[in-house]
Amino acid sequence: MHVVELTEPGIFEHRERPRPAPGPNEVLVEIRHVGICGSDVHYYELGRIGDYVVTDPLVLGHESAGVVAEVGRDVDHLDSGDRVALEPGVPCGECAQCRSGTYNLCPDVEFMATPPDDGAFAEYVAWDADFAYRLPDGVSTRSGALCEPLSVALHATRRAAIDLGETVLVTGAGPIGAMVVKTARAAGAGDILVSDVVPSKLDRAREMGATETINVSERSLEAAIDDITGGDGVDVVVEASGATPAIAATTTVVRRGGTVVCIGLSGDDEIPIATNELVDKELDFRGSFRFRNTYPDAISLLERGVIDVEDIIDFEMPMADLTAAFERAQEPDVVKGMVAVGSE
Amino acid sequence: MHVVELTEPGIFEHRERPRPAPGPNEVLVEIRHVGICGSDVHYYELGRIGDYVVTDPLVLGHESAGVVAEVGRDVDHLDSGDRVALEPGVPCGECAQCRSGTYNLCPDVEFMATPPDDGAFAEYVAWDADFAYRLPDGVSTRSGALCEPLSVALHATRRAAIDLGETVLVTGAGPIGAMVVKTARAAGAGDILVSDVVPSKLDRAREMGATETINVSERSLEAAIDDITGGDGVDVVVEASGATPAIAATTTVVRRGGTVVCIGLSGDDEIPIATNELVDKELDFRGSFRFRNTYPDAISLLERGVIDVEDIIDFEMPMADLTAAFERAQEPDVVKGMVAVGSE
Amino acid sequence: MHVVELTEPGIFEHRERPRPAPGPNEVLVEIRHVGICGSDVHYYELGRIGDYVVTDPLVLGHESAGVVAEVGRDVDHLDSGDRVALEPGVPCGECAQCRSGTYNLCPDVEFMATPPDDGAFAEYVAWDADFAYRLPDGVSTRSGALCEPLSVALHATRRAAIDLGETVLVTGAGPIGAMVVKTARAAGAGDILVSDVVPSKLDRAREMGATETINVSERSLEAAIDDITGGDGVDVVVEASGATPAIAATTTVVRRGGTVVCIGLSGDDEIPIATNELVDKELDFRGSFRFRNTYPDAISLLERGVIDVEDIIDFEMPMADLTAAFERAQEPDVVKGMVAVGSE
Amino acid sequence: MHVVELTEPGIFEHRERPRPAPGPNEVLVEIRHVGICGSDVHYYELGRIGDYVVTDPLVLGHESAGVVAEVGRDVDHLDSGDRVALEPGVPCGECAQCRSGTYNLCPDVEFMATPPDDGAFAEYVAWDADFAYRLPDGVSTRSGALCEPLSVALHATRRAAIDLGETVLVTGAGPIGAMVVKTARAAGAGDILVSDVVPSKLDRAREMGATETINVSERSLEAAIDDITGGDGVDVVVEASGATPAIAATTTVVRRGGTVVCIGLSGDDEIPIATNELVDKELDFRGSFRFRNTYPDAISLLERGVIDVEDIIDFEMPMADLTAAFERAQEPDVVKGMVAVGSE
Repeated sequence: MHVVELTEPGIFEHRERPRPAPGPNEVLVEIRHVGICGSDVHYYELGRIGDYVVTDPLVLGHESAGVVAEVGRDVDHLDSGDRVALEPGVPCGECAQCRSGTYNLCPDVEFMATPPDDGAFAEYVAWDADFAYRLPDGVSTRSGALCEPLSVALHATRRAAIDLGETVLVTGAGPIGAMVVKTARAAGAGDILVSDVVPSKLDRAREMGATETINVSERSLEAAIDDITGGDGVDVVVEASGATPAIAATTTVVRRGGTVVCIGLSGDDEIPIATNELVDKELDFRGSFRFRNTYPDAISLLERGVIDVEDIIDFEMPMADLTAAFERAQEPDVVKGMVAVGSE
Repeated sequence: MHVVELTEPGIFEHRERPRPAPGPNEVLVEIRHVGICGSDVHYYELGRIGDYVVTDPLVLGHESAGVVAEVGRDVDHLDSGDRVALEPGVPCGECAQCRSGTYNLCPDVEFMATPPDDGAFAEYVAWDADFAYRLPDGVSTRSGALCEPLSVALHATRRAAIDLGETVLVTGAGPIGAMVVKTARAAGAGDILVSDVVPSKLDRAREMGATETINVSERSLEAAIDDITGGDGVDVVVEASGATPAIAATTTVVRRGGTVVCIGLSGDDEIPIATNELVDKELDFRGSFRFRNTYPDAISLLERGVIDVEDIIDFEMPMADLTAAFERAQEPDVVKGMVAVGSE
Repeated sequence: MHVVELTEPGIFEHRERPRPAPGPNEVLVEIRHVGICGSDVHYYELGRIGDYVVTDPLVLGHESAGVVAEVGRDVDHLDSGDRVALEPGVPCGECAQCRSGTYNLCPDVEFMATPPDDGAFAEYVAWDADFAYRLPDGVSTRSGALCEPLSVALHATRRAAIDLGETVLVTGAGPIGAMVVKTARAAGAGDILVSDVVPSKLDRAREMGATETINVSERSLEAAIDDITGGDGVDVVVEASGATPAIAATTTVVRRGGTVVCIGLSGDDEIPIATNELVDKELDFRGSFRFRNTYPDAISLLERGVIDVEDIIDFEMPMADLTAAFERAQEPDVVKGMVAVGSE
Repeated sequence: MHVVELTEPGIFEHRERPRPAPGPNEVLVEIRHVGICGSDVHYYELGRIGDYVVTDPLVLGHESAGVVAEVGRDVDHLDSGDRVALEPGVPCGECAQCRSGTYNLCPDVEFMATPPDDGAFAEYVAWDADFAYRLPDGVSTRSGALCEPLSVALHATRRAAIDLGETVLVTGAGPIGAMVVKTARAAGAGDILVSDVVPSKLDRAREMGATETINVSERSLEAAIDDITGGDGVDVVVEASGATPAIAATTTVVRRGGTVVCIGLSGDDEIPIATNELVDKELDFRGSFRFRNTYPDAISLLERGVIDVEDIIDFEMPMADLTAAFERAQEPDVVKGMVAVGSE
């Protein structure tokens, strides 16, 4: 089968590998669509993310969906021909985190496109059938692949425990921020404010449900929120930019007793945080890591039409043009690039 | 009546003021004991804490208990002669925070010894009767005064939501840290580790229930916790030191999925926090501000003998010697100084 | 001023009373609209609800909105001419429940139209200004009056802690059930099933957002839910009928680990509950009583157009015809009757 | 190896079976101690519990501990000779409940001594190594076997979310009730009241930490609690008797806003519950089913000496006398019978 390997920073190589055989609890999936994530781009550019270093050739791509080509002998909930979205992380199922339901924190998770585990820019992937979810009629593999960033947003929205009518600030209008606008809206948020530095992304956030946008290259986030909320601050901040000034501002722009959820990973090891504000305002400052127990709900949101993900996609290119796709994905106004795999 | 005013940094003046008359919902309390809090010392030394500046003469002291001398006409749950502990903050009762039960976050709270509100280094204080709590037989006014720091610890323990058997790290073995050792123990914590730089305070923490102590002037907190927990980190950190290195270390020493509660106010406006750890470990990082709904429980813990607070007191001096008491309270190995007011 | 008193079961008397003067923290409100609640009808018919007995003439009506006519001297957030919705219960603000934020459980609450406290079928009502909420442009007093049943639904929805995409069963398609359909939808529920015995109410529930309806005079709730959910049961049940069979069925129709919230008061003192199911399925079975901290959010939902309440109103009649209005309100297919008060 | 089978109600047969070989993820455990649970006695007497019917010979016993005799090839956290407690339920690890952390609700759990799954009255048991927990020095297999009922109590205590100082009523002073007294004490409960009809059990509950006991054959629970709490009711009820009057009384004896946790399975299919109290008092009424994620904590509580379980054991008899042990276990004043298995 055909795969694309990242062999060194900036270099994709198209290679042939033997088609994997599914294990007893696995399905073999003919991949159809794979979204390009910021982390894929990061590996492509630098060959590493923090402590994760690409030493051997690595197949990128972890936002994927396809068609079941073969079913392992102990799998009975899927059939050949089923279209499925793949949850990219398979936890061990036995550690204290897994047993407590926080399987996204499993230390032994196998996660696609994270060294040394390969991802989905490949004709076929063999995957644990319990982490392959059937897509109903009306949900395409193109949308299904985006269950992954939608899951990140869903999980963050749950971590934020948004109450009906609360004012939510989303910092960052990239793919995750855009998805959070949608999930916060679905969860009953009131006003949804979005900040970014790229005007076109802010425009799109507004089309997706943001009630107000803030271009933080024009005015400071603190001043804008002070203005908009009459000095009270917002109920909830979901930090989805990873930008140091945005992370640092969260404690200032949130109201007393409010909640900050951080999704964005920063390029800086340490961010200056006003911990006295954290105490004085008695904030809840929560990290949100990947997702757990989200795929069925993400698919249901797509099926019911509550959330549409097509509008975050800027372009679709075939896997044959993966280098071009990755180059284009780095343009500042691109929210999401999509890669078509195989013959469909 | 006799009061002591802080007129400028380092200067206490003994003055006479008219004895206040209790309002219809107030009690007049003849003060007996007042603990010296770190914030009192801070005002004494510098004349300010952050934005709170002592411009007019201020009566310090907010850890107080005494005897009811007179009862307002609408008060029916207290009588003259009742010994009471005074909750030092009286919220407005009507704002959104008050109505939601988070009255410690009320923006209009009147809090003793916080400019411009006077505190309890006075012969008499007139106080909202709903914030005066009868002390049962067997709980002295000396112990009752310490319901205040005990409340800070109780509230932080609730914010931490310590589960039975969890390993708790308390950073800082001052009066709040010491109290947290006691409340965490009472709430069912398993191992309780305490860090500080003063050996005598660590020894006392051990006597109060800490299972292990760490002198962070000898080895780093990170290394010590790594050692003790076999690299896993602790379940819960309660930060009670306000020391920048301790606050900064919390995200490292807590386990994946763990909880950090910050009580300590720092001298630094910003602390370098590894927010990527916050995300990657999916931490809950919570501020804890003063307390709410704690006094009845604090008194009950004292009455039932579950918690003893006498052992945190280093010395007791009469109000006549307030300057000496404040000087002594600044010695590094002092945990808590107590001031006796009046004739008892 | 003109008021209508219930003097004995079935008898309304139109009377004149002196116009009240607002206290320092009160506003005098010229009432415009009052919704007829099932409890009003109950008092009208039987002169009592459980232990609450109408012994003296009682003014009914607690779903009200009007225009501020006069402002008490300490009120600064409202002006004459402001249109306001009145939260009908004013708690004491000082008891343990009030301080904990659960003010709906205050034992000393003064609640409109609950003996001995009069309600809103009156030209003027003087009311605690903190429980009078300004209606924005675009929200009529007619809609504003229905913030009350909307609040009941909002509170129950919060008690249910509905997660994005969860399947919710609402038993009872009366005014509360209808409102719960709307609030559950706003909070991100997935499928919303509604049961009742009146076909026209079920039709209306469907128009309001229910995805499926069950006429329990035709098939049992248990069989229907078994069918619809493939034997799994629903995630959440909100019981809004007060019907004994519905309450008794809740533990059967909810899934393992699911949640039941009971709002409906039953005519029976005791309901046969399968507590073994409660244990075996580890259910959360929660009562929901009136509401707390809901009015600002209810008004915001109306203002933003997320929820419309006009469609639950069957008819509007002037207060002059109150007896006719109450008679009509008892017809089985009526969801909500509205009474216009005054000259508007 | 030697096992004891229940072949029909009241008949134990001692049989030889082949010693099982541990699977790759299993350990073979030489059983040392097995506690007799009420459910064992129930199967022994009636041959069934509800829908679970003993049709084929069944080995009873699910409170067990022993010594590892052989280790499966993929097991690396246990060695031969390790003493272990066995968690009796092994869930599937893959269903929605398992992935959400509520593995005690897994529909496919294999649970010892529940038809058709055999239990631990056997010389050897092969068991999933992830559900075998090493006992530290100082915790005997006799105590270790009682991690099972301790786990039931721990889980119920967590479901109750007991706050520091809350008053807890435990209905039923059998083994589970006794264990709840201990776990509630460890979790910081204030007053702990216990009700039962057997004076000797009440005496023992008091020795274990109950602050007050109520013999409900002498006065009604409602009257007693009314008396003791001055009409306020208790904060939390943990129902551990399964007695219909006790279950029915819970809504009356708990305070407004309080919590009831039901562990006890009733002989009655339906219990008359005052659901209006549930609504009016806005109660949380929660089922608690078996346990999850408790064994490490239970063992830690035993190791640290916070909880002692030896004092609930009335007698120990060898497995050779199992019929006699089961007969004695049915005497009204017996709390827990223990069976010694093997040669130790």
